[in-house]
Amino acid sequence: MTESDLPVAQLTPGRWGDPAHPVALPPAALEALKHLGVRRPAEPAAPVDRPGLSNEALQLLEKLLGAEHLKTDLETRWGHTRGYSTPDLLRHRAGDTTDMPAAVVYPASHDEVQALLTTCSEQHLAVVPYAGGTSVVGGLAPQGTAFIAVDLRRLERLVELDEISRTATLEAGVRGTAAEALLAERGYTLGHFPQSYEGASIGGYAATRSSGQSSAGYGRFDQMVVGLTMATPRGTIELGKAPMSAAGPDLRQLVLGSEGTLGIITSVVVRIRPRPVERSFEGWRFGSFDEGLVAIRRLAQDGPLPTVLRLSDEAETAINLADPDVLAGGSGGVQAIVGFEGERTGVRRTEVAAVLTAAGGEEMGEGPGETWREGRYRAPYLRDPLLDEGALVETLETAGFWSALPQLKAQVTEALVTALTEQGTPPIVLCHVSHVYETGASLYFTVICAQTDDPIAQWRKAKTAANAAISAAGGTITHHHGVGTDHRSAYAEEVGPLAIEALQAVKHVLDPNGILNPGILIPPDLDPAS
Amino acid sequence: MTESDLPVAQLTPGRWGDPAHPVALPPAALEALKHLGVRRPAEPAAPVDRPGLSNEALQLLEKLLGAEHLKTDLETRWGHTRGYSTPDLLRHRAGDTTDMPAAVVYPASHDEVQALLTTCSEQHLAVVPYAGGTSVVGGLAPQGTAFIAVDLRRLERLVELDEISRTATLEAGVRGTAAEALLAERGYTLGHFPQSYEGASIGGYAATRSSGQSSAGYGRFDQMVVGLTMATPRGTIELGKAPMSAAGPDLRQLVLGSEGTLGIITSVVVRIRPRPVERSFEGWRFGSFDEGLVAIRRLAQDGPLPTVLRLSDEAETAINLADPDVLAGGSGGVQAIVGFEGERTGVRRTEVAAVLTAAGGEEMGEGPGETWREGRYRAPYLRDPLLDEGALVETLETAGFWSALPQLKAQVTEALVTALTEQGTPPIVLCHVSHVYETGASLYFTVICAQTDDPIAQWRKAKTAANAAISAAGGTITHHHGVGTDHRSAYAEEVGPLAIEALQAVKHVLDPNGILNPGILIPPDLDPAS
Repeated sequence: MTESDLPVAQLTPGRWGDPAHPVALPPAALEALKHLGVRRPAEPAAPVDRPGLSNEALQLLEKLLGAEHLKTDLETRWGHTRGYSTPDLLRHRAGDTTDMPAAVVYPASHDEVQALLTTCSEQHLAVVPYAGGTSVVGGLAPQGTAFIAVDLRRLERLVELDEISRTATLEAGVRGTAAEALLAERGYTLGHFPQSYEGASIGGYAATRSSGQSSAGYGRFDQMVVGLTMATPRGTIELGKAPMSAAGPDLRQLVLGSEGTLGIITSVVVRIRPRPVERSFEGWRFGSFDEGLVAIRRLAQDGPLPTVLRLSDEAETAINLADPDVLAGGSGGVQAIVGFEGERTGVRRTEVAAVLTAAGGEEMGEGPGETWREGRYRAPYLRDPLLDEGALVETLETAGFWSALPQLKAQVTEALVTALTEQGTPPIVLCHVSHVYETGASLYFTVICAQTDDPIAQWRKAKTAANAAISAAGGTITHHHGVGTDHRSAYAEEVGPLAIEALQAVKHVLDPNGILNPGILIPPDLDPAS
Repeated sequence: MTESDLPVAQLTPGRWGDPAHPVALPPAALEALKHLGVRRPAEPAAPVDRPGLSNEALQLLEKLLGAEHLKTDLETRWGHTRGYSTPDLLRHRAGDTTDMPAAVVYPASHDEVQALLTTCSEQHLAVVPYAGGTSVVGGLAPQGTAFIAVDLRRLERLVELDEISRTATLEAGVRGTAAEALLAERGYTLGHFPQSYEGASIGGYAATRSSGQSSAGYGRFDQMVVGLTMATPRGTIELGKAPMSAAGPDLRQLVLGSEGTLGIITSVVVRIRPRPVERSFEGWRFGSFDEGLVAIRRLAQDGPLPTVLRLSDEAETAINLADPDVLAGGSGGVQAIVGFEGERTGVRRTEVAAVLTAAGGEEMGEGPGETWREGRYRAPYLRDPLLDEGALVETLETAGFWSALPQLKAQVTEALVTALTEQGTPPIVLCHVSHVYETGASLYFTVICAQTDDPIAQWRKAKTAANAAISAAGGTITHHHGVGTDHRSAYAEEVGPLAIEALQAVKHVLDPNGILNPGILIPPDLDPAS
């Protein structure tokens, strides 16, 4: 099965993934949880409804979009409440409706989105763009204000495909899976496969600078975008006359990563590539994470680059291989996954193998590679049953320059272990590299421990400590998850007050009444609208 | 001789290039000029001095930087007057001092630049950052205001070189040639070789999104920059904790291309690569420009990419090969230059040759390749003797998506031919592609005709027509020359009024008194300071 064959998943609010394909915890995992002191938590609570919009506001929206494209029932609104971070899921289980939208609207075109924003700005009505809804950083959860969720699922077209230029114009609401299916019909692929692939959408990829599992071969989403159209309360912005330009700052890059705070991206023009004719994934073993890091750096700096390149640390390798030594810290070396897609993969594979072998790697064959490939979107499915059992599971990520990575990894791990151990719940911390560049790479951490009685507060302490460690060790606060509300203050610290003020000034021009995703990205005490 | 062996040229004001290496026009060229109706123009006029700064302002600057780092003599100021576009050179020949700086200062560090900007902002004293001074788009020529040129040549250090991450921190005043020499001592190269290489500097590369002749292999300068430091009247901005990040919009991209209007970039962290061990350049022949375009698109989209990839059209090929048919429009097909640097160039060369041969290309051997390589920085040297003879010579460039390129080329050419023929000076218009991407490429035009009595007005008409054609045919107004004053209105049209307003808001935050490069990039009627 290839990516374009995957169905568009119907996500369940508060639980990740397609309920048609649940994942049960393996017995060994249940056994391991006992060692962490995990106990089953209280049963989930039902959401309690909250007041919605005024009749006047509802009438205005109905007039704009039609009654059938405006929903105010509890089920729909609850289904558009926040994203899929572990705190989000825990709040869902607690029936917390404090950040539930007052209504959900479904515009069908750029013009409808544009008209909606104009009206909402006039009415000072906050709006939250909702595409895949898969944020894991609180990107859909404005605090302290009634808001409308703008569900973009009806912007679902492949508008244009230019085979000469190899570009496709895709509307913002097209899900990742649907985009691949639409492009596959014409013989193309986007090549963007984040772990949220089954749920996330084109608009969300753009708004949050998403990066997929094949980034070594296909690049990040922000590198794929060559043009975009954004509706703002002040009007429409269209950018991208050429792949690259020296016409002033690249303002596309000001829209990418703006997380719905400057406007709603309604379509993007993306670079596409022919569907790969060959594909192979293989496992490699290195004696240690540090040894593996040197090996993948060789590929990132001197090439050739495979399409997928990932390196797990000792602990993650042990978990992935279901090694019973895991609770003792792991011992059996580390595993890398190296994947090839495209033409002539055999040649590249031989070249890559020579580099990895010279760097001390040992080829483990296609078995581990195919195992990873088949399970590549399944990991998040495990989180819900783990939460059911009383485990706390969450991920966080960063990136830095190669020379900073070892210390960055060590300091973030230590911060997490200390913060959670102090709360009586010593964690397992796993780490991998999944995105490489010539000058550096990402680090992705998975944390597992027992829940305390207040797991949201428990995680907040751990996350605050991890953020501080990232900042102190010189990493960026997020490589591909985005800022949302969770990284707001760390982000402000990372770019500094002048840059935040500049961003705030841009927001004030495009969104003078501050209706767009209030409190996201830009710290609220600096937000001109607050 | 390799790039790092080239000396730092001492440019002469008003004439391009190192006077130690003048280039004479070949006799055939002189003959050809007669066909264009060229007559020798009037002799250059001497510049007439203008009032400088007030004594109070001079004392302030002297106190900040020391008397030896403040120059007010006519020769120094005249030597910092505007850049190297043909209108700039013509104004120089006319002795026009209307855009001459009132003083030139030479800060030596980021802190001195920062203190200077703080003081100048308090004093409402306009400043123009001057690094290499090689702008060809009026990027150094604010109109209607007294200003100080801030010459950055004393910011000339390689501050740090991180061999693990392969990054180098270079100060803004380091010339291209000096940067290569500094890096070569350590075994590295930046790989950035614009035609202005002998004169341009690191800060200018960054401020204008420069792209070099080896962009197919090394990327554009904005792709090389992973971090930067900028002094602004409000304080310092430092960006770039990691190669890539999802922490909000990539604000590095807001600084790159800002052309000195938001602050003065004082240093950048750039990606570096090991010095190439092998190098080869070869010529290829195609039946037509359109055929060649398909061939180089194959390489850009499916690889492998050589380090240098250029394709001349029929007219440029004829001129380059000194083909007597040139005045009849050329006929002997077109030439491409394909260059390889790095390791294992032989393998890539074979692969590239297979692609080009399949696309109808014929290999012409290393002769044409080496001829191009040896002369790669010499073309601009020819402009001065051509102007001396009474020819008008200028270049302009754009970029677009592959499917738009044929029409873009045709319409720009037609606009130039029409606008100049209407003035009684039918031109020769040459074109080449020198920067390729998966989704599109650049087009670079060279125009040669006889000067009228008012060549500045003559060119303005032609340039206005070309700009309109670029806009109508869907190209970007500049691929690598920048906006300056020459492309200001076309740029505003390209990105639209809302984007300009956003940029203006950013400027207002960082430069509230509008002292930085006034009138550059942002149209003056929208400039908050005007």
